[in-house]
Amino acid sequence: MAKGLPKRSENYSEWYNELVRMADLAEHSDVRGCMVIKPYGYAIWEKMQAILDKKFKDTGHSNAYFPLFIPKSYLSKEADHVEGFAKECAVVTHYRLKNAEDGSGVVVDPDAKLADELIVRPTSETVIWNTYKKWIQSYRDLPILVNQWANVVRWEMRTRLFLRTAEFLWQEGHTAHATKAEAVAETKQMLDVYADFVENYLALPVVKGVKTESEKFAGAEDTYCIEALMQDGKALQAGTSHFLGQNFAKAFDVKFADKEGKLDLVWGTSWGVSTRMMGALIMAHSDDQGLVLPPSLAPTQVVIVPIYKGEEQLAQITEKVNEIKSKLEAQGVSVKFDDRDTLRPGFKFAEWELKGVPVRLAMGARDLANGTVEVARRDTKEKQTYELENISEVVTNLLEEIQKNIFQQAKDYQQDHITEVDSYDDFKKVLEEKGGFVSAHWDGTTETEDKIKEETKATIRCIPLDNKEEEGVCIYSGKPSTQRVLFAKAY
Amino acid sequence: MAKGLPKRSENYSEWYNELVRMADLAEHSDVRGCMVIKPYGYAIWEKMQAILDKKFKDTGHSNAYFPLFIPKSYLSKEADHVEGFAKECAVVTHYRLKNAEDGSGVVVDPDAKLADELIVRPTSETVIWNTYKKWIQSYRDLPILVNQWANVVRWEMRTRLFLRTAEFLWQEGHTAHATKAEAVAETKQMLDVYADFVENYLALPVVKGVKTESEKFAGAEDTYCIEALMQDGKALQAGTSHFLGQNFAKAFDVKFADKEGKLDLVWGTSWGVSTRMMGALIMAHSDDQGLVLPPSLAPTQVVIVPIYKGEEQLAQITEKVNEIKSKLEAQGVSVKFDDRDTLRPGFKFAEWELKGVPVRLAMGARDLANGTVEVARRDTKEKQTYELENISEVVTNLLEEIQKNIFQQAKDYQQDHITEVDSYDDFKKVLEEKGGFVSAHWDGTTETEDKIKEETKATIRCIPLDNKEEEGVCIYSGKPSTQRVLFAKAY
Repeated sequence: MAKGLPKRSENYSEWYNELVRMADLAEHSDVRGCMVIKPYGYAIWEKMQAILDKKFKDTGHSNAYFPLFIPKSYLSKEADHVEGFAKECAVVTHYRLKNAEDGSGVVVDPDAKLADELIVRPTSETVIWNTYKKWIQSYRDLPILVNQWANVVRWEMRTRLFLRTAEFLWQEGHTAHATKAEAVAETKQMLDVYADFVENYLALPVVKGVKTESEKFAGAEDTYCIEALMQDGKALQAGTSHFLGQNFAKAFDVKFADKEGKLDLVWGTSWGVSTRMMGALIMAHSDDQGLVLPPSLAPTQVVIVPIYKGEEQLAQITEKVNEIKSKLEAQGVSVKFDDRDTLRPGFKFAEWELKGVPVRLAMGARDLANGTVEVARRDTKEKQTYELENISEVVTNLLEEIQKNIFQQAKDYQQDHITEVDSYDDFKKVLEEKGGFVSAHWDGTTETEDKIKEETKATIRCIPLDNKEEEGVCIYSGKPSTQRVLFAKAY
Repeated sequence: MAKGLPKRSENYSEWYNELVRMADLAEHSDVRGCMVIKPYGYAIWEKMQAILDKKFKDTGHSNAYFPLFIPKSYLSKEADHVEGFAKECAVVTHYRLKNAEDGSGVVVDPDAKLADELIVRPTSETVIWNTYKKWIQSYRDLPILVNQWANVVRWEMRTRLFLRTAEFLWQEGHTAHATKAEAVAETKQMLDVYADFVENYLALPVVKGVKTESEKFAGAEDTYCIEALMQDGKALQAGTSHFLGQNFAKAFDVKFADKEGKLDLVWGTSWGVSTRMMGALIMAHSDDQGLVLPPSLAPTQVVIVPIYKGEEQLAQITEKVNEIKSKLEAQGVSVKFDDRDTLRPGFKFAEWELKGVPVRLAMGARDLANGTVEVARRDTKEKQTYELENISEVVTNLLEEIQKNIFQQAKDYQQDHITEVDSYDDFKKVLEEKGGFVSAHWDGTTETEDKIKEETKATIRCIPLDNKEEEGVCIYSGKPSTQRVLFAKAY
């Protein structure tokens, strides 16, 4: 077990915090709520970015960049948006410092006050739709399919690394369309892109669904989401895709002339995933020994540790290792040879386990004599000795198998943790004792939703897209209902 | 000529502004000094990022991410840094908005005032060295070789798209070393990386040099730079690499224990290039018809325009074009087939010229009959008709030739515009009538430098690294000097 890492069963929350710290993923900065993403954590984020960016481009999107600052007045333009969303944010009021007269350092120059304060973007719908107004005149200017990779700031009071921070990194897609049908199709397409990414790369199964009225994005007509389960039975929203209707077009007066010259409001979507996905990735598969990374996102997929006595043996092992390394790298596998001479093999094993490297090879004197190498997989911790001859095939197959296995484990967990209940007592019991998604009938009112949340801390995560129609009665109010929705406690 | 684009000879500055706008590279936002980088401009920036990022990784660096906000108090810790640098910046004083009582929108909530104001980072030395203090205990923790891709804000009063904006995008490398020699070597290595990148990808020759005391980065011991010449004879600093000595280690108390356990201050470097390079790229090669992009940075390297009458002919041309396109794409060439049916070929030609696409193919009825295609190069505007058979070889060779040619043109211009002078009269005359770099003896004092700047607006761009020793007298003060330095008016 990793020294100092709490067990999940004892304190899941502390386990997560310590794991993020010990695996060198991120740390708190001195600025309240802002994190430092360390190189190892950032390398995982970069892999996520590269894969997503390619998917966005393959679906016809381009990247662009919009200002960090939003004039305060923009936020008031879309009524729901400002009401539901944009209050807790960083406000820039001045644009200059000056030396303090007492020589103690710098102070804000009171003469450099902005007439209209600027908000550090919490999300960019307003500044982007204000720009789209200039870009769109005719149907020929549509669709606009733009994405932005950026930092955003929301002044959260309680923060946790990756899961909830004041500043975080994300991408936000913002598209504009001539028809409602096209915008709805885009919204759903991007949800599918996210679901595919999270399932196939993060190896994390998701439920695709729609948010209720009270949980949807402020300013959207519909918010689609993907919801994943963590090992403690809590849900985590891993991505959202919003159908904005004509709300932001209305707020910023964005109209286009159709083929007949008739003016109409533009339809919009926005969609985003953030460094929060790092939190999901960390929590989804990891264990009491440390991180378990899916091979497709691991910065280092294979680590090779030599076990030797003396320089000569090390030289012999190194020669063999370099052969293996070249073969694997030729297959596109990222390999690290850990030949640090100040640390023992056991220490290295524990360190790479902590950091979640999917496959570890170890080569000692006996292997050298036999032409073999020991192969250990991180997910099941199984070890097996293989001939060197086919080693690159063995390892590439194993990487694929690990990817599949950790997905399957998470899938099994998810399937075991979607529980149908038909009474409020059972609902509370399942939430308390088992966790996970609770599938229950709900009368469709915000009032009931709020009361259940107040009494149990569970929220409606989504109305699943593949829901079957089913007559029933609301577990809380007893009123009639036509379908079940998924409740859970959530991050 | 591109309709509406001013001629360089008539108004170079307006030519630049209009070119950026008309070629869809960027535009001003409603937020003073902040730009919107449009998809076409951003696609070029992404290419720059990808190439640089690989170079950074090939030289052992990793990416990480540090907070957007810097506590005001940090800025006072390094005396030169705050004095020379960090005054004009965006200051966050509050963290919440609330609804105005009169219902007019949102106002800043006076109850949500920060005790210590936060600065939006103008550069990250302070926040990073404050972090490095936690990362560095022993020589085993060194070197730290980290880079960050980020947005930064400097409250500039006069802004120009890409060249000088309040918010801009950049990368900032920040490294920490056990010895002075290692830090100096790192500083120089990164200067070489920049020079290589700008010369081989932007196709823009640079002079490598060191800044004078008054032009160096506030907080650095030495600032190395690369300086390029624009077509109007003004210089543009395209990148800087700073040897920080132990200044930031001292300010943030960052010490390491060496092998003997003795504590010593850490040595540092920082280095950066920004979206300003976009400005250099645009100005360096473009002409009165529009952008001229080096093939290695052009988002679209080849555009194919069909010239046809009727659907049937278009179908025949499309078939041939698709063959060409596949062949070129297989060679890694990015190709766009412009088959928009609402625009005439002449309009398309002008548009792609404006956007700087290096090679244009046009195929009409006669080409169809002859099995040929017309190939036009953007840089020289030469056109030639080729057999289809070897077209992919012709085009890939041509792309290489264009890359070389526009570099050579810029190199010739640069060589013609480094003028040695030995009197102040000649100095002023060359500055006024010819522009470019003026190579002159200088007495080494800030006083003389300031006076020359005041009288002529020329600054010392750098002391070239490959300078030869040469006895002489300062053109201004007549005092003895041992080498020439390069003066110029600059962006």
